[in-house]
Amino acid sequence: MLAAEKIELKPIGFVKTKEFGKDVRDRSNVSEIVLRDDLAEALDGIEDFSHLFVIFWMHEISEEERRTMKARPRGRGDMPLLGVFATRTPHRPNLIGLTLVELLKVEGNVVTVRGLDAVDGTPVLDIKPFDYWDMAEDARVPEWWMRLEKERSEKRGSK
Amino acid sequence: MLAAEKIELKPIGFVKTKEFGKDVRDRSNVSEIVLRDDLAEALDGIEDFSHLFVIFWMHEISEEERRTMKARPRGRGDMPLLGVFATRTPHRPNLIGLTLVELLKVEGNVVTVRGLDAVDGTPVLDIKPFDYWDMAEDARVPEWWMRLEKERSEKRGSK
Repeated sequence: MLAAEKIELKPIGFVKTKEFGKDVRDRSNVSEIVLRDDLAEALDGIEDFSHLFVIFWMHEISEEERRTMKARPRGRGDMPLLGVFATRTPHRPNLIGLTLVELLKVEGNVVTVRGLDAVDGTPVLDIKPFDYWDMAEDARVPEWWMRLEKERSEKRGSK
Repeated sequence: MLAAEKIELKPIGFVKTKEFGKDVRDRSNVSEIVLRDDLAEALDGIEDFSHLFVIFWMHEISEEERRTMKARPRGRGDMPLLGVFATRTPHRPNLIGLTLVELLKVEGNVVTVRGLDAVDGTPVLDIKPFDYWDMAEDARVPEWWMRLEKERSEKRGSK
Protein backbone atom coordinates (compact mmCIF):
# COMPACT_ATOMS: atom_id res chain seq x y z
CA MET A 1 0.00 0.00 0.00
CA LEU A 2 1.55 3.21 -1.18
CA ALA A 3 -0.77 5.92 0.01
CA ALA A 4 -2.82 6.82 3.06
CA GLU A 5 -5.30 4.09 3.86
CA LYS A 6 -8.14 6.39 4.81
CA ILE A 7 -9.68 9.06 2.68
CA GLU A 8 -12.03 11.71 4.01
CA LEU A 9 -14.67 13.49 2.02
CA LYS A 10 -17.16 16.19 2.79
CA PRO A 11 -20.48 16.37 0.93
CA ILE A 12 -20.70 19.29 -1.49
CA GLY A 13 -24.46 19.23 -0.98
CA PHE A 14 -27.55 17.04 -0.67
CA VAL A 15 -30.28 15.62 -2.90
CA LYS A 16 -33.85 16.88 -2.48
CA THR A 17 -36.63 14.80 -4.01
CA LYS A 18 -40.30 14.09 -3.25
CA GLU A 19 -40.12 10.56 -4.60
CA PHE A 20 -39.79 7.52 -2.34
CA GLY A 21 -38.81 3.89 -2.77
CA LYS A 22 -38.86 2.51 -6.29
CA ASP A 23 -40.09 5.75 -7.82
CA VAL A 24 -36.66 7.26 -7.16
CA ARG A 25 -35.35 4.99 -9.91
CA ASP A 26 -37.82 6.30 -12.49
CA ARG A 27 -35.80 8.04 -15.18
CA SER A 28 -38.30 10.90 -15.36
CA ASN A 29 -37.77 11.72 -11.66
CA VAL A 30 -36.85 15.38 -11.15
CA SER A 31 -34.56 16.16 -8.19
CA GLU A 32 -32.71 19.13 -6.83
CA ILE A 33 -29.10 19.10 -5.78
CA VAL A 34 -28.74 21.75 -3.09
CA LEU A 35 -25.07 22.68 -2.87
CA ARG A 36 -23.34 24.31 0.06
CA ASP A 37 -23.72 28.09 -0.25
CA ASP A 38 -19.99 28.60 -0.52
CA LEU A 39 -19.85 26.38 -3.62
CA ALA A 40 -22.44 28.20 -5.76
CA GLU A 41 -19.77 29.97 -7.82
CA ALA A 42 -18.20 26.61 -8.72
CA LEU A 43 -21.27 26.02 -10.93
CA ASP A 44 -20.52 28.93 -13.30
CA GLY A 45 -20.77 27.77 -16.89
CA ILE A 46 -22.29 24.37 -16.12
CA GLU A 47 -25.51 25.27 -17.90
CA ASP A 48 -23.73 24.98 -21.26
CA PHE A 49 -23.74 21.21 -20.77
CA SER A 50 -26.97 19.26 -21.26
CA HIS A 51 -25.88 16.26 -19.17
CA LEU A 52 -23.93 15.77 -15.94
CA PHE A 53 -22.51 12.93 -13.93
CA VAL A 54 -23.60 13.09 -10.32
CA ILE A 55 -21.36 11.24 -7.87
CA PHE A 56 -23.04 10.61 -4.55
CA TRP A 57 -22.75 8.63 -1.32
CA MET A 58 -25.32 5.87 -0.82
CA HIS A 59 -25.67 6.53 2.90
CA GLU A 60 -28.57 4.12 3.47
CA ILE A 61 -26.46 1.03 2.79
CA SER A 62 -25.33 -0.79 5.95
CA GLU A 63 -21.80 -1.77 6.97
CA GLU A 64 -22.76 -5.40 6.44
CA GLU A 65 -24.05 -4.72 2.93
CA ARG A 66 -20.74 -2.96 2.15
CA ARG A 67 -18.98 -6.27 2.64
CA THR A 68 -21.04 -8.00 -0.09
CA MET A 69 -18.80 -9.60 -2.71
CA LYS A 70 -21.37 -11.21 -5.03
CA ALA A 71 -24.80 -10.19 -6.17
CA ARG A 72 -27.42 -11.03 -8.76
CA PRO A 73 -28.54 -8.07 -10.92
CA ARG A 74 -31.80 -6.65 -9.49
CA GLY A 75 -31.59 -9.48 -6.89
CA ARG A 76 -33.29 -11.80 -9.40
CA GLY A 77 -32.83 -15.56 -9.23
CA ASP A 78 -32.77 -15.85 -13.02
CA MET A 79 -29.73 -13.56 -13.22
CA PRO A 80 -26.13 -14.79 -12.85
CA LEU A 81 -24.24 -14.45 -9.57
CA LEU A 82 -21.60 -11.79 -10.23
CA GLY A 83 -18.87 -9.91 -8.44
CA VAL A 84 -20.15 -6.53 -7.24
CA PHE A 85 -17.70 -4.68 -9.54
CA ALA A 86 -19.39 -6.39 -12.52
CA THR A 87 -22.71 -4.81 -11.52
CA ARG A 88 -24.10 -1.43 -10.50
CA THR A 89 -25.45 -2.74 -7.18
CA PRO A 90 -25.27 -0.19 -4.32
CA HIS A 91 -23.74 -2.95 -2.18
CA ARG A 92 -20.03 -2.27 -2.76
CA PRO A 93 -16.95 -1.53 -0.65
CA ASN A 94 -17.20 2.23 -1.16
CA LEU A 95 -20.79 3.44 -1.36
CA ILE A 96 -20.23 5.66 -4.36
CA GLY A 97 -23.13 6.13 -6.75
CA LEU A 98 -22.65 7.40 -10.29
CA THR A 99 -25.55 8.52 -12.45
CA LEU A 100 -25.81 10.37 -15.73
CA VAL A 101 -28.54 12.99 -15.47
CA GLU A 102 -30.11 15.65 -17.62
CA LEU A 103 -29.47 19.21 -16.45
CA LEU A 104 -32.70 21.19 -16.32
CA LYS A 105 -31.88 24.38 -14.43
CA VAL A 106 -29.31 26.14 -12.25
CA GLU A 107 -30.45 28.79 -9.77
CA GLY A 108 -27.91 30.01 -7.24
CA ASN A 109 -26.69 26.93 -5.38
CA VAL A 110 -29.54 24.68 -6.61
CA VAL A 111 -29.13 22.38 -9.62
CA THR A 112 -32.32 20.79 -10.93
CA VAL A 113 -31.81 17.50 -12.79
CA ARG A 114 -33.83 14.69 -14.32
CA GLY A 115 -32.98 11.00 -13.81
CA LEU A 116 -31.07 10.99 -10.52
CA ASP A 117 -31.76 7.69 -8.73
CA ALA A 118 -30.79 8.90 -5.27
CA VAL A 119 -33.11 9.17 -2.26
CA ASP A 120 -33.96 12.37 -0.45
CA GLY A 121 -31.06 13.50 1.76
CA THR A 122 -28.35 11.68 -0.20
CA PRO A 123 -24.94 13.40 0.22
CA VAL A 124 -23.50 14.55 -3.11
CA LEU A 125 -19.73 14.24 -3.56
CA ASP A 126 -19.07 15.71 -6.98
CA ILE A 127 -20.69 16.95 -10.17
CA LYS A 128 -18.90 16.56 -13.49
CA PRO A 129 -20.02 17.70 -16.93
CA PHE A 130 -20.64 14.89 -19.43
CA ASP A 131 -18.70 15.06 -22.67
CA TYR A 132 -17.97 12.77 -25.62
CA TRP A 133 -14.93 11.24 -23.95
CA ASP A 134 -17.34 9.56 -21.52
CA MET A 135 -19.00 7.60 -24.27
CA ALA A 136 -18.19 4.24 -25.85
CA GLU A 137 -20.56 3.77 -28.73
CA ASP A 138 -19.18 0.35 -29.55
CA ALA A 139 -19.30 -0.92 -25.95
CA ARG A 140 -19.93 -4.61 -25.35
CA VAL A 141 -22.29 -5.51 -22.48
CA PRO A 142 -23.21 -9.00 -21.21
CA GLU A 143 -26.22 -11.03 -22.31
CA TRP A 144 -27.91 -10.53 -18.91
CA TRP A 145 -27.74 -6.76 -19.29
CA MET A 146 -29.38 -6.90 -22.72
CA ARG A 147 -32.10 -9.17 -21.30
CA LEU A 148 -32.91 -6.69 -18.49
CA GLU A 149 -32.89 -3.78 -20.91
CA LYS A 150 -35.30 -5.59 -23.26
CA GLU A 151 -37.73 -6.14 -20.38
CA ARG A 152 -37.46 -2.49 -19.38
CA SER A 153 -38.21 -1.24 -22.86
CA GLU A 154 -41.14 -3.65 -23.23
CA LYS A 155 -42.55 -2.35 -19.94
CA ARG A 156 -42.20 1.23 -21.09
CA GLY A 157 -43.89 0.34 -24.37
CA SER A 158 -46.92 -1.23 -22.67
CA LYS A 159 -47.61 1.79 -20.43
CA MET B 1 -27.47 19.26 6.72
CA LEU B 2 -29.27 15.97 7.06
CA ALA B 3 -26.51 13.38 7.16
CA ALA B 4 -23.10 12.87 8.68
CA GLU B 5 -20.68 15.57 7.56
CA LYS B 6 -17.70 13.32 7.14
CA ILE B 7 -17.45 10.30 4.90
CA GLU B 8 -14.63 7.79 5.10
CA LEU B 9 -13.44 5.61 2.28
CA LYS B 10 -10.81 2.96 1.93
CA PRO B 11 -9.06 2.36 -1.39
CA ILE B 12 -10.07 -0.89 -3.09
CA GLY B 13 -6.64 -0.92 -4.74
CA PHE B 14 -4.00 1.17 -6.50
CA VAL B 15 -2.98 2.14 -10.03
CA LYS B 16 0.26 0.79 -11.47
CA THR B 17 1.66 2.52 -14.55
CA LYS B 18 5.08 3.17 -16.05
CA GLU B 19 4.03 6.48 -17.56
CA PHE B 20 4.88 9.83 -15.96
CA GLY B 21 3.67 13.40 -16.31
CA LYS B 22 1.68 14.25 -19.42
CA ASP B 23 2.02 10.75 -20.88
CA VAL B 24 -0.40 9.51 -18.24
CA ARG B 25 -3.10 11.41 -20.11
CA ASP B 26 -2.40 9.65 -23.41
CA ARG B 27 -5.48 7.62 -24.25
CA SER B 28 -3.36 4.67 -25.37
CA ASN B 29 -1.73 4.42 -21.92
CA VAL B 30 -2.06 0.91 -20.47
CA SER B 31 -2.30 0.65 -16.66
CA GLU B 32 -2.96 -2.01 -14.09
CA ILE B 33 -5.41 -1.68 -11.25
CA VAL B 34 -4.12 -3.88 -8.46
CA LEU B 35 -7.02 -4.62 -6.13
CA ARG B 36 -6.76 -5.72 -2.53
CA ASP B 37 -6.48 -9.53 -2.45
CA ASP B 38 -9.74 -9.92 -0.54
CA LEU B 39 -11.63 -8.16 -3.36
CA ALA B 40 -10.57 -10.38 -6.27
CA GLU B 41 -13.84 -12.31 -6.26
CA ALA B 42 -15.79 -9.06 -6.62
CA LEU B 43 -14.47 -8.93 -10.21
CA ASP B 44 -16.27 -12.10 -11.33
CA GLY B 45 -18.09 -11.49 -14.60
CA ILE B 46 -16.55 -8.08 -15.28
CA GLU B 47 -14.78 -9.38 -18.39
CA ASP B 48 -18.14 -9.49 -20.22
CA PHE B 49 -18.01 -5.70 -20.37
CA SER B 50 -15.66 -3.98 -22.80
CA HIS B 51 -15.55 -0.67 -20.92
CA LEU B 52 -15.43 0.37 -17.28
CA PHE B 53 -15.65 3.52 -15.24
CA VAL B 54 -12.76 3.85 -12.85
CA ILE B 55 -13.37 6.12 -9.86
CA PHE B 56 -10.16 7.16 -8.14
CA TRP B 57 -8.72 9.59 -5.61
CA MET B 58 -6.43 12.29 -7.01
CA HIS B 59 -4.07 12.16 -4.04
CA GLU B 60 -1.45 14.49 -5.52
CA ILE B 61 -3.72 17.54 -5.36
CA SER B 62 -3.02 19.84 -2.40
CA GLU B 63 -5.44 21.11 0.24
CA GLU B 64 -5.11 24.58 -1.24
CA GLU B 65 -5.90 23.35 -4.76
CA ARG B 66 -9.02 21.64 -3.34
CA ARG B 67 -10.37 25.06 -2.44
CA THR B 68 -10.20 26.29 -6.06
CA MET B 69 -13.59 27.59 -7.22
CA LYS B 70 -12.78 28.72 -10.76
CA ALA B 71 -10.50 27.40 -13.45
CA ARG B 72 -9.76 27.75 -17.14
CA PRO B 73 -9.89 24.46 -19.11
CA ARG B 74 -6.32 23.12 -19.50
CA GLY B 75 -5.19 26.29 -17.68
CA ARG B 76 -5.26 28.14 -20.99
CA GLY B 77 -5.71 31.89 -21.16
CA ASP B 78 -7.86 31.63 -24.29
CA MET B 79 -10.39 29.50 -22.46
CA PRO B 80 -13.25 30.92 -20.35
CA LEU B 81 -13.00 31.16 -16.55
CA LEU B 82 -15.46 28.53 -15.28
CA GLY B 83 -16.67 27.06 -12.04
CA VAL B 84 -14.79 23.84 -11.26
CA PHE B 85 -18.03 21.80 -11.53
CA ALA B 86 -18.33 22.96 -15.15
CA THR B 87 -14.93 21.39 -15.93
CA ARG B 88 -13.06 18.14 -15.37
CA THR B 89 -10.18 19.87 -13.57
CA PRO B 90 -8.68 17.78 -10.75
CA HIS B 91 -8.88 20.88 -8.53
CA ARG B 92 -12.26 20.27 -6.89
CA PRO B 93 -13.65 19.99 -3.34
CA ASN B 94 -13.57 16.18 -3.34
CA LEU B 95 -10.61 14.81 -5.32
CA ILE B 96 -12.65 12.21 -7.16
CA GLY B 97 -11.50 11.28 -10.65
CA LEU B 98 -13.80 9.52 -13.13
CA THR B 99 -12.49 7.98 -16.34
CA LEU B 100 -13.99 5.66 -18.91
CA VAL B 101 -11.45 2.98 -19.81
CA GLU B 102 -11.22 -0.01 -22.06
CA LEU B 103 -10.94 -3.34 -20.22
CA LEU B 104 -8.09 -5.42 -21.60
CA LYS B 105 -7.59 -8.27 -19.15
CA VAL B 106 -8.46 -9.58 -15.68
CA GLU B 107 -6.05 -11.89 -13.88
CA GLY B 108 -6.73 -12.63 -10.22
CA ASN B 109 -6.86 -9.25 -8.47
CA VAL B 110 -5.27 -7.32 -11.37
CA VAL B 111 -7.35 -5.47 -13.96
CA THR B 112 -5.46 -4.22 -17.02
CA VAL B 113 -7.05 -1.22 -18.74
CA ARG B 114 -6.34 1.27 -21.52
CA GLY B 115 -6.94 4.99 -21.16
CA LEU B 116 -6.72 5.57 -17.42
CA ASP B 117 -5.32 9.08 -16.79
CA ALA B 118 -4.16 8.41 -13.23
CA VAL B 119 -0.58 8.49 -12.00
CA ASP B 120 1.26 5.53 -10.50
CA GLY B 121 0.12 4.86 -6.93
CA THR B 122 -3.30 6.50 -7.31
CA PRO B 123 -5.84 5.01 -4.86
CA VAL B 124 -8.82 3.46 -6.64
CA LEU B 125 -12.23 3.87 -4.98
CA ASP B 126 -14.59 1.95 -7.23
CA ILE B 127 -14.93 0.19 -10.57
CA LYS B 128 -18.25 0.15 -12.38
CA PRO B 129 -19.16 -1.50 -15.66
CA PHE B 130 -20.13 0.87 -18.47
CA ASP B 131 -23.55 0.32 -20.05
CA TYR B 132 -25.85 2.19 -22.41
CA TRP B 133 -27.56 4.08 -19.59
CA ASP B 134 -24.28 5.99 -19.17
CA MET B 135 -24.49 7.46 -22.61
CA ALA B 136 -26.18 10.59 -23.96
CA GLU B 137 -25.80 10.53 -27.70
CA ASP B 138 -27.55 13.85 -28.10
CA ALA B 139 -25.53 15.61 -25.40
CA ARG B 140 -24.83 19.32 -25.76
CA VAL B 141 -21.33 20.52 -24.83
CA PRO B 142 -20.01 24.11 -24.79
CA GLU B 143 -18.20 25.83 -27.63
CA TRP B 144 -14.89 25.75 -25.69
CA TRP B 145 -15.06 21.97 -25.36
CA MET B 146 -15.59 21.54 -29.10
CA ARG B 147 -12.65 23.87 -29.75
CA LEU B 148 -10.32 21.81 -27.52
CA GLU B 149 -11.53 18.57 -29.09
CA LYS B 150 -10.91 19.90 -32.59
CA GLU B 151 -7.32 20.75 -31.64
CA ARG B 152 -6.81 17.30 -30.13
CA SER B 153 -8.05 15.51 -33.22
CA GLU B 154 -5.89 17.72 -35.48
CA LYS B 155 -2.86 16.86 -33.33
CA ARG B 156 -3.62 13.16 -33.56
CA GLY B 157 -4.08 13.48 -37.33
CA SER B 158 -0.67 15.13 -37.80
CA LYS B 159 1.23 12.44 -35.87
